[in-house]
Amino acid sequence: MTIEAKLAQLGIDLPEPPKVPPGVRIPFSFVRLHGDRAYLSGHTAQRVDGSLAGPFGKVGEDVLPDAAYDAARLTAVSMLGSLKRELGDLNRVDRWLRIFGMVNTAPDFNEFPAVINGCSDLILELWGEDAGQHARSAIGVAGLPWNFCVEIEAEVAIRP
Amino acid sequence: MTIEAKLAQLGIDLPEPPKVPPGVRIPFSFVRLHGDRAYLSGHTAQRVDGSLAGPFGKVGEDVLPDAAYDAARLTAVSMLGSLKRELGDLNRVDRWLRIFGMVNTAPDFNEFPAVINGCSDLILELWGEDAGQHARSAIGVAGLPWNFCVEIEAEVAIRP
Amino acid sequence: MTIEAKLAQLGIDLPEPPKVPPGVRIPFSFVRLHGDRAYLSGHTAQRVDGSLAGPFGKVGEDVLPDAAYDAARLTAVSMLGSLKRELGDLNRVDRWLRIFGMVNTAPDFNEFPAVINGCSDLILELWGEDAGQHARSAIGVAGLPWNFCVEIEAEVAIRP
Repeated sequence: MTIEAKLAQLGIDLPEPPKVPPGVRIPFSFVRLHGDRAYLSGHTAQRVDGSLAGPFGKVGEDVLPDAAYDAARLTAVSMLGSLKRELGDLNRVDRWLRIFGMVNTAPDFNEFPAVINGCSDLILELWGEDAGQHARSAIGVAGLPWNFCVEIEAEVAIRP
Repeated sequence: MTIEAKLAQLGIDLPEPPKVPPGVRIPFSFVRLHGDRAYLSGHTAQRVDGSLAGPFGKVGEDVLPDAAYDAARLTAVSMLGSLKRELGDLNRVDRWLRIFGMVNTAPDFNEFPAVINGCSDLILELWGEDAGQHARSAIGVAGLPWNFCVEIEAEVAIRP
Repeated sequence: MTIEAKLAQLGIDLPEPPKVPPGVRIPFSFVRLHGDRAYLSGHTAQRVDGSLAGPFGKVGEDVLPDAAYDAARLTAVSMLGSLKRELGDLNRVDRWLRIFGMVNTAPDFNEFPAVINGCSDLILELWGEDAGQHARSAIGVAGLPWNFCVEIEAEVAIRP
């Protein structure tokens, strides 16, 4: 079964390109290809129409850990949207290599791995234990753009 | 026109090697080459003589966003100084791949993309839309060495 | 002399696989291999039996800088334990490329390079100035899993 068939089976629609707030300039690529690698910019949760999805704020204070898990899963979906636009076919993603998960954290929260599992779980569900496996860090940061609760960047190996 | 001719046209001088404060040991390389890749350590703003340049402190509190944009641009210049010393010729930088921008942030600031644009804009000005394009994250961190306001690391593809 | 002989000479034992607290799920790999690269997940200090080692808390407040240096050195040992399990032989690590050091910081601390030197120093001691050399960033973050004081991720080049 293709990755896109699996997504359909899970009822997941890939979002439109990210719509940033008016007046914001983002002079970078969401995906940068070179050789057999794709570098993914820091992604965040989106609605299907491309608009930025909440919840916004600090996990452990404004955002519950479970909602942050969901945001991390939705962030993975955003990354898949970017990869689909860039590669044409998600099955060109050969292997996941590195996921770097950043959680906008309240002072006393530290369950960052449980939050970023929202991303890892979906990747493993779609690509399986071998191709989906990845190195990962999950840390608490002092702030994220537009007060997002989760941002994730990644590196994957692609087929020509 | 070569990258260095463009720098001259913009009136930009590359700085001397970073001069760190007395007693500080930095047992790492500012640029690490391997195959067709150069990994750039976290760089910060420098004066032309190599000394560490301010402004220092937290963006949104001690440092205005515009001054942080300028620091990010100057940080890009520091990276070019390191690349020039390592590669001999900046035209050996074939393509920019990844920029990771870290902003020393006050609690309520979150316009990190606008700050790190100071780096992205200069890279795109010098290398153009194709070679200069890059994946990017721009986040708020709880602290940076010597209280710098901006630190940026990067990965680029190089010609032999 | 092999890397493992050098470790023995230094009296360093590699730890067992990390033992995470009950109920914690870590659906990622501590090392992800692809081509001639190994991507190392964010590692932290361990005891020889694999259990998570302190000190825990914020450097500059709960943890003294010297103790954080020791934790960074122990974190390097954890990374070597993961590489040994994955590669069978630490001499298959050909060259160190990138080290990304994250320090769980108190508001007024910023000597992150001095902390992460604990990792860099051990790597250079074992691999020498050429193979051990690496690009590096050392930053302060708002939180780390289980309130670790130091977490480090890395990328290395490996022999087939």
